[in-house]
Amino acid sequence: MKTWIALAGATLLTGTALGQTDVTQAAREFREANEAAILTETLDFLRLPNVADNREDMLANARHIIALMEARGIEGRILEAGDASPAVYGELTVPGATRTLMLYTHYDGQPVEPENWASDPFDPVIRAGRLENGAEIIADPLAGEIDPDWRIYGRSSSDDKSPLIAMFAAIDALRAAGQGPNVNIRFFLEGEEEAGSPHLRDLLEAHRDLLQADLWLIADGPIDTRGDPRVLLGVRGVTSMQVTIHGAERVLHSGHYGNVAPNPAARLAHLIASMRDETGRVLVEGFYDDVLPISETARGYLEAGAFDEASLLEEPGIARTEWGPGALYGEAVMVPALNILGLDAGTVGPGTRNAIPDRASAAIGFRVVPGMSLERLRERMNAHIEAQGYVVLDREPTDAERLEHTHIAEVHWESAGYEAASTEAGHPLIGHLVELVDEASERPVRVVPLLGGSLPLAPISDVTNTPFAIVPVVNPDNSQHAPNENLRIGHLWDGIELYAAILADDWETD
Amino acid sequence: MKTWIALAGATLLTGTALGQTDVTQAAREFREANEAAILTETLDFLRLPNVADNREDMLANARHIIALMEARGIEGRILEAGDASPAVYGELTVPGATRTLMLYTHYDGQPVEPENWASDPFDPVIRAGRLENGAEIIADPLAGEIDPDWRIYGRSSSDDKSPLIAMFAAIDALRAAGQGPNVNIRFFLEGEEEAGSPHLRDLLEAHRDLLQADLWLIADGPIDTRGDPRVLLGVRGVTSMQVTIHGAERVLHSGHYGNVAPNPAARLAHLIASMRDETGRVLVEGFYDDVLPISETARGYLEAGAFDEASLLEEPGIARTEWGPGALYGEAVMVPALNILGLDAGTVGPGTRNAIPDRASAAIGFRVVPGMSLERLRERMNAHIEAQGYVVLDREPTDAERLEHTHIAEVHWESAGYEAASTEAGHPLIGHLVELVDEASERPVRVVPLLGGSLPLAPISDVTNTPFAIVPVVNPDNSQHAPNENLRIGHLWDGIELYAAILADDWETD
Repeated sequence: MKTWIALAGATLLTGTALGQTDVTQAAREFREANEAAILTETLDFLRLPNVADNREDMLANARHIIALMEARGIEGRILEAGDASPAVYGELTVPGATRTLMLYTHYDGQPVEPENWASDPFDPVIRAGRLENGAEIIADPLAGEIDPDWRIYGRSSSDDKSPLIAMFAAIDALRAAGQGPNVNIRFFLEGEEEAGSPHLRDLLEAHRDLLQADLWLIADGPIDTRGDPRVLLGVRGVTSMQVTIHGAERVLHSGHYGNVAPNPAARLAHLIASMRDETGRVLVEGFYDDVLPISETARGYLEAGAFDEASLLEEPGIARTEWGPGALYGEAVMVPALNILGLDAGTVGPGTRNAIPDRASAAIGFRVVPGMSLERLRERMNAHIEAQGYVVLDREPTDAERLEHTHIAEVHWESAGYEAASTEAGHPLIGHLVELVDEASERPVRVVPLLGGSLPLAPISDVTNTPFAIVPVVNPDNSQHAPNENLRIGHLWDGIELYAAILADDWETD
Repeated sequence: MKTWIALAGATLLTGTALGQTDVTQAAREFREANEAAILTETLDFLRLPNVADNREDMLANARHIIALMEARGIEGRILEAGDASPAVYGELTVPGATRTLMLYTHYDGQPVEPENWASDPFDPVIRAGRLENGAEIIADPLAGEIDPDWRIYGRSSSDDKSPLIAMFAAIDALRAAGQGPNVNIRFFLEGEEEAGSPHLRDLLEAHRDLLQADLWLIADGPIDTRGDPRVLLGVRGVTSMQVTIHGAERVLHSGHYGNVAPNPAARLAHLIASMRDETGRVLVEGFYDDVLPISETARGYLEAGAFDEASLLEEPGIARTEWGPGALYGEAVMVPALNILGLDAGTVGPGTRNAIPDRASAAIGFRVVPGMSLERLRERMNAHIEAQGYVVLDREPTDAERLEHTHIAEVHWESAGYEAASTEAGHPLIGHLVELVDEASERPVRVVPLLGGSLPLAPISDVTNTPFAIVPVVNPDNSQHAPNENLRIGHLWDGIELYAAILADDWETD
């Protein structure tokens, strides 16, 4: 079912050397003839430990990637910036090509706790299905026919080493078929994404000249839970604050001090209630001022089924979206969210003491959307708390302050935090990308204008001023970041076809 | 400074055999001649371990008390009801007396953790002052002059064995002076008050005929922090509830589910804000319907300095009473309180997760005042939660209930709880008592119409239908319920004079 075409606008496919079906068919045939070799390359790559804080390990990975590039005539090199874990850059210039795609993956993985894994995270194995279903390790998986439902278990098998293998195999397939690539390709492969991308901005700024492209494609994260290919155009940003309302100097008897001592837990409840209503609408002055409206194109993608609405709600037992009856999941995550992440005061449950707490704390998280600025958000939130009658401190109050002020709030903002980042759904290159991805699969493409979660993509759009899109490869049930991370082999096969279609195109959309 | 007379009304002292000054002077002279003997009696009593769950220990204490009674011609006996720790009853009928006072103390003590004590809790010692000031144990304290600032350290030294010694010594003193007692005296000495008086109602009902009196006098708790004698006319009642707001079935990613999953912590904040405003006023329909207004007499006592307003606020760092600018401490504790005792949801502080909690809980305590009923309170609170759109359950919701209802609250009420209890400040016997206490001391009496805290006194007023008052003896810094409980000896001396004045009177107020 292909409902996207009318919604995505009238962008037409142009300049593809082969018809799309021919390209994916060629990629499939190449893969079928080379499955063992592709998996061998994958497994070899996964055998290199890749936790970002181990510089030696990361250098070994980087050199391995450069070797894989060089085997394909891609000019590879390490990019450095300060004490950043090394990034790998690669360049493949195609004669006659006028457009350049920047392909992004990260090659570092989440830290591992081997005792929680069923097999060594850095000695990948292939199982005949899902571990949860009791699938056993296959002794010699590459000897015969390979079932696409088999899975590779190992750290970074899905997040994010296999998408890079898919890209390399796609290039190999196009060349074997004499069909390209027909676009200039650059690689920017990060080595510390799982550590929060602390030097991404530095790396991009230090190597600004190298990192020119028409479009960044990011092969991180999973495809749609319904098994459909996915194009994601942005992420919400994130930050958080800790608010502590101070009461009396010590915990007081709830009888002798009930109605006498200020109750910081009750005050915190009122403060939170003043910040947002029960449907998630934020009541803080100016909070929505900078929010960019949802475009018609984006709304079209949402209404065409950007998300699997029913299962996203039913599976975790949600009667309806908090944002309101009738609000789509995708709409709810395109507006900023003020989440109460935690509350802590006094005692609750069987050990409850009849006492008035001396303080009450809340952790408040924010998911911001394009247009907003974390700095202005912080200013507005602090101003809101002051407008509720509080003196805002960044430390405990002194004894004198306690006796002087009836309302004291201690506020700490998370020093890190990501700004939101997105590419306009109506951008012509995005429309083109969506068509290519849709044509490359028998299943409909799901276009997500904005993901509810956050990734450090803002530096990419800020520094390069280039549109970007996330085009994932791996299975949604890959246990990324957790023990027993895995890749369904059939998803790797589909990823090769997907990236072959993307790289076979000449991207001359005008 | 004696400001109370005009406030307490025009009750006049009548029928006292001696003038008040003569009685207290006689008691003082008796005490001065018998200090070592009185302290020996005190120390012997404190050597008997008295944690209520040890029945043998409690029986030994009861027999000891009966022996002390018999030595004074008081007829003593044990009262039982079911498996209650034994209560001790005593009766002293005075020829010609027309009034009867019931004297109450409890002889059980809080459990001890001997390792946290500076000396054995059941081998009392006398120190030359406060342990906190480094006061040493006196080797042979009864050999010479006894300083009233010395302190006895031992469990129940203040709470509640010494007041009983003061009563016995007061009877001895009056007799030695040929001055009484001039009122019939009954004793009701409880053996499980520190365990929450679980059988007090049973004991009172089982022995209703014995426990007739005109007035109950309860010698529990400390005198005023300013060093003034105190008469307390009631206590607030207490109960608590646990409320859990249920969100999704599990903790969810705050990005993927922010504005989608209901945020139970935000909902809990709104629910609390709907229950009470920031000044402690409860917004629940009907909450104040049964509250008895503060009488003019009671208000007079408050305004005459029932409490040490300034230090009660300044010491714990409170800028002003929560109830409002200008509200007296005493006024704030005469209205019911809804205290948020605790909040718990998700994560707060350095370990905060960017996640939407699956539930948020609050412990909510209530201090109720005379006129209110805990049963009606529970009904009104449950109805209020329902009126906010919640389905109220007493268990976790089922999966089906989660998908059916947008708002689910799980509510559990504390099974125990005390009703409020008080005697009208304008009762003639109270006016009389206040005059006696005031006359017995050089310092002004402080009359507290209602104590903010709670004691299980409701059974006394319910079952006996008799006025009561608390007339304490011991020092406020006695560390009751804690390690190193102590009694300042001077307070015991004052207590003897106080009870001598009370028992010398014939209480014929009409």
